[in-house]
Amino acid sequence: MSKIIGKSLPNIPWQDKPEGYTMPVWRYSENPIIGRNGNKVSNSVFNSAVVPFENGFAGVFRCDSRSISMDIFAGRSRDGIHWEIEDEPIHFEGADEEILHREYRYDPRVCFLEDRYYITWCNGYHGPTIGVAYTYDFKKFVQLENAFLPYNRNGVLFPEKINGMYALLSRPSDTGHTPFGDIFVSFSKDMEFWGHHRHIMGPIPGDESAWQCTKVGPGPIPIKTDEGWLLIYHGVITTCNGFVYRMGVALLDLEKPWKVLARSKEYILAPHEYYECVGDVPNVTFPCAALTDADTGRIAIYYGCADTVTGMAFTTVDELLAAARR
Amino acid sequence: MSKIIGKSLPNIPWQDKPEGYTMPVWRYSENPIIGRNGNKVSNSVFNSAVVPFENGFAGVFRCDSRSISMDIFAGRSRDGIHWEIEDEPIHFEGADEEILHREYRYDPRVCFLEDRYYITWCNGYHGPTIGVAYTYDFKKFVQLENAFLPYNRNGVLFPEKINGMYALLSRPSDTGHTPFGDIFVSFSKDMEFWGHHRHIMGPIPGDESAWQCTKVGPGPIPIKTDEGWLLIYHGVITTCNGFVYRMGVALLDLEKPWKVLARSKEYILAPHEYYECVGDVPNVTFPCAALTDADTGRIAIYYGCADTVTGMAFTTVDELLAAARR
Amino acid sequence: MSKIIGKSLPNIPWQDKPEGYTMPVWRYSENPIIGRNGNKVSNSVFNSAVVPFENGFAGVFRCDSRSISMDIFAGRSRDGIHWEIEDEPIHFEGADEEILHREYRYDPRVCFLEDRYYITWCNGYHGPTIGVAYTYDFKKFVQLENAFLPYNRNGVLFPEKINGMYALLSRPSDTGHTPFGDIFVSFSKDMEFWGHHRHIMGPIPGDESAWQCTKVGPGPIPIKTDEGWLLIYHGVITTCNGFVYRMGVALLDLEKPWKVLARSKEYILAPHEYYECVGDVPNVTFPCAALTDADTGRIAIYYGCADTVTGMAFTTVDELLAAARR
Amino acid sequence: MSKIIGKSLPNIPWQDKPEGYTMPVWRYSENPIIGRNGNKVSNSVFNSAVVPFENGFAGVFRCDSRSISMDIFAGRSRDGIHWEIEDEPIHFEGADEEILHREYRYDPRVCFLEDRYYITWCNGYHGPTIGVAYTYDFKKFVQLENAFLPYNRNGVLFPEKINGMYALLSRPSDTGHTPFGDIFVSFSKDMEFWGHHRHIMGPIPGDESAWQCTKVGPGPIPIKTDEGWLLIYHGVITTCNGFVYRMGVALLDLEKPWKVLARSKEYILAPHEYYECVGDVPNVTFPCAALTDADTGRIAIYYGCADTVTGMAFTTVDELLAAARR
Amino acid sequence: MSKIIGKSLPNIPWQDKPEGYTMPVWRYSENPIIGRNGNKVSNSVFNSAVVPFENGFAGVFRCDSRSISMDIFAGRSRDGIHWEIEDEPIHFEGADEEILHREYRYDPRVCFLEDRYYITWCNGYHGPTIGVAYTYDFKKFVQLENAFLPYNRNGVLFPEKINGMYALLSRPSDTGHTPFGDIFVSFSKDMEFWGHHRHIMGPIPGDESAWQCTKVGPGPIPIKTDEGWLLIYHGVITTCNGFVYRMGVALLDLEKPWKVLARSKEYILAPHEYYECVGDVPNVTFPCAALTDADTGRIAIYYGCADTVTGMAFTTVDELLAAARR
Amino acid sequence: MSKIIGKSLPNIPWQDKPEGYTMPVWRYSENPIIGRNGNKVSNSVFNSAVVPFENGFAGVFRCDSRSISMDIFAGRSRDGIHWEIEDEPIHFEGADEEILHREYRYDPRVCFLEDRYYITWCNGYHGPTIGVAYTYDFKKFVQLENAFLPYNRNGVLFPEKINGMYALLSRPSDTGHTPFGDIFVSFSKDMEFWGHHRHIMGPIPGDESAWQCTKVGPGPIPIKTDEGWLLIYHGVITTCNGFVYRMGVALLDLEKPWKVLARSKEYILAPHEYYECVGDVPNVTFPCAALTDADTGRIAIYYGCADTVTGMAFTTVDELLAAARR
Repeated sequence: MSKIIGKSLPNIPWQDKPEGYTMPVWRYSENPIIGRNGNKVSNSVFNSAVVPFENGFAGVFRCDSRSISMDIFAGRSRDGIHWEIEDEPIHFEGADEEILHREYRYDPRVCFLEDRYYITWCNGYHGPTIGVAYTYDFKKFVQLENAFLPYNRNGVLFPEKINGMYALLSRPSDTGHTPFGDIFVSFSKDMEFWGHHRHIMGPIPGDESAWQCTKVGPGPIPIKTDEGWLLIYHGVITTCNGFVYRMGVALLDLEKPWKVLARSKEYILAPHEYYECVGDVPNVTFPCAALTDADTGRIAIYYGCADTVTGMAFTTVDELLAAARR
Repeated sequence: MSKIIGKSLPNIPWQDKPEGYTMPVWRYSENPIIGRNGNKVSNSVFNSAVVPFENGFAGVFRCDSRSISMDIFAGRSRDGIHWEIEDEPIHFEGADEEILHREYRYDPRVCFLEDRYYITWCNGYHGPTIGVAYTYDFKKFVQLENAFLPYNRNGVLFPEKINGMYALLSRPSDTGHTPFGDIFVSFSKDMEFWGHHRHIMGPIPGDESAWQCTKVGPGPIPIKTDEGWLLIYHGVITTCNGFVYRMGVALLDLEKPWKVLARSKEYILAPHEYYECVGDVPNVTFPCAALTDADTGRIAIYYGCADTVTGMAFTTVDELLAAARR
Repeated sequence: MSKIIGKSLPNIPWQDKPEGYTMPVWRYSENPIIGRNGNKVSNSVFNSAVVPFENGFAGVFRCDSRSISMDIFAGRSRDGIHWEIEDEPIHFEGADEEILHREYRYDPRVCFLEDRYYITWCNGYHGPTIGVAYTYDFKKFVQLENAFLPYNRNGVLFPEKINGMYALLSRPSDTGHTPFGDIFVSFSKDMEFWGHHRHIMGPIPGDESAWQCTKVGPGPIPIKTDEGWLLIYHGVITTCNGFVYRMGVALLDLEKPWKVLARSKEYILAPHEYYECVGDVPNVTFPCAALTDADTGRIAIYYGCADTVTGMAFTTVDELLAAARR
Repeated sequence: MSKIIGKSLPNIPWQDKPEGYTMPVWRYSENPIIGRNGNKVSNSVFNSAVVPFENGFAGVFRCDSRSISMDIFAGRSRDGIHWEIEDEPIHFEGADEEILHREYRYDPRVCFLEDRYYITWCNGYHGPTIGVAYTYDFKKFVQLENAFLPYNRNGVLFPEKINGMYALLSRPSDTGHTPFGDIFVSFSKDMEFWGHHRHIMGPIPGDESAWQCTKVGPGPIPIKTDEGWLLIYHGVITTCNGFVYRMGVALLDLEKPWKVLARSKEYILAPHEYYECVGDVPNVTFPCAALTDADTGRIAIYYGCADTVTGMAFTTVDELLAAARR
Repeated sequence: MSKIIGKSLPNIPWQDKPEGYTMPVWRYSENPIIGRNGNKVSNSVFNSAVVPFENGFAGVFRCDSRSISMDIFAGRSRDGIHWEIEDEPIHFEGADEEILHREYRYDPRVCFLEDRYYITWCNGYHGPTIGVAYTYDFKKFVQLENAFLPYNRNGVLFPEKINGMYALLSRPSDTGHTPFGDIFVSFSKDMEFWGHHRHIMGPIPGDESAWQCTKVGPGPIPIKTDEGWLLIYHGVITTCNGFVYRMGVALLDLEKPWKVLARSKEYILAPHEYYECVGDVPNVTFPCAALTDADTGRIAIYYGCADTVTGMAFTTVDELLAAARR
Repeated sequence: MSKIIGKSLPNIPWQDKPEGYTMPVWRYSENPIIGRNGNKVSNSVFNSAVVPFENGFAGVFRCDSRSISMDIFAGRSRDGIHWEIEDEPIHFEGADEEILHREYRYDPRVCFLEDRYYITWCNGYHGPTIGVAYTYDFKKFVQLENAFLPYNRNGVLFPEKINGMYALLSRPSDTGHTPFGDIFVSFSKDMEFWGHHRHIMGPIPGDESAWQCTKVGPGPIPIKTDEGWLLIYHGVITTCNGFVYRMGVALLDLEKPWKVLARSKEYILAPHEYYECVGDVPNVTFPCAALTDADTGRIAIYYGCADTVTGMAFTTVDELLAAARR
């Protein structure tokens, strides 16, 4: 049996795999866990990130307003399932007014690293790029330099330094509904200057694994295991009626995370349920966070559904490793 | 409290706002009021217009046939909810054979003005333009000159002359699924020659009110109030899976209706219900008519759902004014 | 009353037309008959073909895998409704390694002709073209030369020679989600070299029959009647939110099947039910097979729903002839 | 021999047709007559309009500045060949500030009608539409209401009332490099309110006359003859390397100018010379004005070359009538 | 030294390679040999084919008319340089009226095979496909079946049977200015039914040989040598200002011509001269014919220039073999 | 009079401004200085960079090969006008094989900084990004890390550290013929890790300065003056026949180079000459280098012409400052 290298999380949300279910990831029976009205101003709550915090959980949530303005909001939960999301977006402090100026913010990730929680998100700065901030308490948030030039989306930090450097996944993009997308990793000594960019993987052309033939992008913070980094990611195909977003998983080398040791040929979750197929953008399942329990190997994934609501799904480290190698 | 300047309509269809509901417009509990089979030939009935008539109500309905030929049909109702729609499209009489020649007709509006009911619609004449006709009795319909050159959609008359001239809202377009759209007003002394074109408002770029960032177009006949003309309109955003049509409201100056006094930043209704999200064109709510009661300030909106069925929603003059100013 | 010229099929799946139903084709009440999990590896089972075989039925099924690899699989059924589909794709034998090399396979048709069952499908060979194979027993399949150069889809054989030659319908295409499509017929003396290509029909421009204004393609094996060949086909319209696939029917001349004797102006089936409107590709009904009983004139159509599941619908030769002529 | 119905113009610029030349229109031997530096600020001078004025000629010229700002400028000439163009764009006076506000102006036409010179041009007002102004002296210019809603280009007046009304040709368009275009005529009693829109002609699809298969638009003021109105127009084809603009001619009914009596199947001039093929937009010949002499039937055409310089070409009423009928 | 396997042609047009010139193909010093006015009706003469005939030469020429109607015309020459092209397009006889019906015809090739001259060209039949005809005398032309279904262009016959069958190169395409293109070979026993389609080569993606990264298509009739078939072809790149057409050469296996033995990485001719860069479609050099002299190894290539005029260029079998292998 | 802050260059190539010429930049009378055949393998030589070196000049040249492979080559010149360019592309040494792997290289800039010459260029690494290398002698070149993730073009170094950090201009892009483009500056302490990205300027929408309404990108190494950094840049407009590339100039703050102090409304050079309008990509003038002489204020600009040949143009610091402020 493989091991998650990380902390215990005895209170991880959990349901056992349903009898007879054969896919590696199974949905929470009460999905969606957060509806359109997650706070007082929201049109939709999706593509959001959570972490264990104090005795319970904290998170950063994408809430599109009823004017369809995109911003990110802090939230708290005792059980990881029922969430109280603030009605005011996060207010960032920081050293440089130019960087603090808000255009739009969406698709956050949260990563505990060394002594604090880092937030990364798609940040408008003359185009979409990767915003970076940290907090100790989910009350005060300090915004740092944007990690990259535009145009980029889906900035996802590794939860520890690799070879003495911070490591950040991302998916370079264009200015619109980008029809391409590869996953890269970049490194930094100081969370301020980034370099050593390495290509990890791109879409798979042709018929072999067509659900990921248009673009791929990183999802939750990678999960450290004794066999490598587990990266849950999204893959996209272009149908005659638009994009379909599904979930896959890859195993990356611990020391050289741009080396792909294994990668799921089959998707691990796809839009099949009503709340995943119908909504503001049909046929989207988009993972942004995962809780893990090192004692049991349990994993709880949080994912956006149809760009409208938030769902939860369960799996284990063994299921994901098997899926990546299948 | 604000006032609708208009007639009493004690028999306006009505339901009170549900307890705890916070949005300014609420749906009729038995929606949709007209299904796909609104008459014997229809594939779908939507984007249609109704008015008080005699002791009940009359209307002009867009019924796409089962060959998906688009035409408009007269209908009658006692209560404004249950409708009998004719099985033959409206037959127009008129002075000029060239104008009477039918290519296609869709998205009608009906406006009582002076002594008769004017019908305006999207009329095929070497491209979409604004057709104009009138009736006294919803039996005999007389077609006038098209108001404009192609290419145009969403012709909506004001219910009285402004500065001694007829006033007509429209949304100039191109020949296809137009990716742009502003609202203009034009004037005429005789309902035959049009001029004095004035720009009212366009889409709102960027993140501030993104649900209306691709195009906007006028909906029902403007509602006269003591504070200005209330214009319910549609706004469109482009997602990676197509257009989403939502509803907003603006307040226009009584004398110079091209002056926008207020405009909703948040949408007032959006495709959330099954019959609005699933159908021949998913994610469309498209308002084309509104009944008003000057005594109570009540407003009943008729709107097309997913280009397939017809829904009804309720609001009041105060709710709309507050929404326009929020 | 018109006659199907063919065999008796007393065990054809059947339900009578529901009371008061007015459309020429009616759905099986227990649709869909095959869900996403039609075999152990499938993400979706649709656009598939069945024939009477021995005491029951056999078929070739498009099962997209959970890697969204498209391939075709053999299946068997006692009643034509409940199917057992193999978990391994069809393995083809043949004379030429270059032809046997698999890129992708989808949208099969099956045609009993002379002494064997021919399979035709969209076959990847430096672009989509028409693959051809035969089987006697649905166990051993022998693959022949591709019928055409790329780019082509929807190869559909006639069930007997016409003027001493094999006859094959198809829809030439491009390399992507082709926005055009006409139906052609081609002939061969030896099922190896093809020529005498004839145009049958294209989309109908304008408003007259707009559901088929973007492209049309052949569906099931044509049904021989005393009045001509009945061809059930798909027609496509482009909405602002993508393609909608509906079904129509045409009557072709027995001797010169490129002569269209009649053609449905109205669609005969369209995506109205949940399982047709919601799925991996919303709003698709795509017919690929039909069973017929010459004794009763009964016809059972198999069609793909939303590129996800398989449905069945019923009609009769008289209903279809009337629809073609309406 | 046919007759131009109009004034004598003994000083019309003129060269006889070269020996052995067989096309109906021949170029001035010293073309281009106006180069890039037509005035002090110009990057290019093209698509411009001239008329006889006092003892010589006057005109309104499109001069794109060296910031590529598009505006129109007055000019004077003694011989119609050598021009002095002002260095300041035309300053318009008028009744309504909203209409006077300049966005951009291009492609003017000038028409003497009754007692004054009317200028029409493509005028930016929340999109391109038709601006209208008049002058008596080419010094003071009074701007009237825009004739139409956006989006429109190539407004061309008839030089006299038809059936008691002003008549205006135009080509409705979209907001960009429009890939379609038909010619319409509209009428007005007062040059302020427009109606009675009639379709004249569109592109010719297929192979029959492919140089005009993408779009057509009106050129100079129509020339009155005893056989009908001669309309020189531009026609466009789309090649794999962009648009090619050529010239054609049509004959319109005198009383009902939307009736096309004849139309050139062959182009009458096309980009063959260096200054027509090379420039800011290669392969454009775009006619905007024509001088005529009723005594001799001579016609001098002014046309833009490659969106960069201005050329002149000669023909006669008999040549054009023959070309329209060929 | 390599050998052309073919006939002597002592009167082949010829100029020696200029001193110091290093490219494998050099232009005729008096290019273009045919201008726009190649016959009485032509707007342009290009993409044409010639063969030795009687004491001189004959050819089939693409002449676009001055209505830009595309058709093919017979022509004769004593020296292969000065041509007399007929003013009437070729009139085809044949067995089937449907096939004889002309939509449009362009880009002919001529191939002497067994006892007659075969003509192949891009023939409109509900889309572009490959027309086939033959003549003995360039006076009477008999049209056979189209070789393929639409959509296809550039049909080029081999000058002798291969493995007992006729062999035909082509480039499947779409309906427009196709942005892709591979070369295939197909076989026939009877010049009527075609099969055994084999892929020869496609564009070369990326940077290695980018002039041929968008599409490639066959040019003149392949030249038989003792080392294989020499195929001169066109290759296309997409720049930000459109397509550029250049020439390359490949060496194909004599017995299995779908096996590419060598292929030019560098182009052998490209649009550098004025008459190749400027014209109706800038930057096109498009080879359609080649004369060869087995005694000397000399080759004279005929190619279209800028879709406007016809040029000639010279090379030898050794130059081409070296270029193919470089 | 303003001053260039830099070295003397008495041997700068130079011609005085022609009499009567009014534009701020004038062409070298013997343009182009380098033709298509700049070295033995080139199809075209353009978008190249030169610097003073030893007693003469050295440079790095973009030579597209006759396979249209894009690479960069070293060259030497005694007078800056006549160049000897090597026939082998630059061979880079370096620490990391993955980075050294060549995909394609184009549009180099050369910058003397501290003690060596840095080369930056558009470097293929799973998409275009900015390659970085240095040389002391134009013989040995050491390649460093790519500066950024894809997708980026036009990396241009400042010639000295700013605020203690290296500063690099660039234009983020997409994977194709990018239809957008803004200029950014990024900073680094070690030429290896980059951050502090700042937006400088984007295209100018609308009519005010339309030659730069599609995209803008940095050209030569910025020129230090006592009033700020002079940045010569390219600006692009989209016509119906493609992009046109022109030149402009901006003045940037010395300490905060992302502050734009002045910017040319009019272009300073545009494609007017034959060798700028006709070539592999028509209508391109693209500056990549400038020599300066601090003693006289003279500036010699090197620019690519029609993506085919290399031109030179002259100006002075006073001319450019005046143009930036006009």
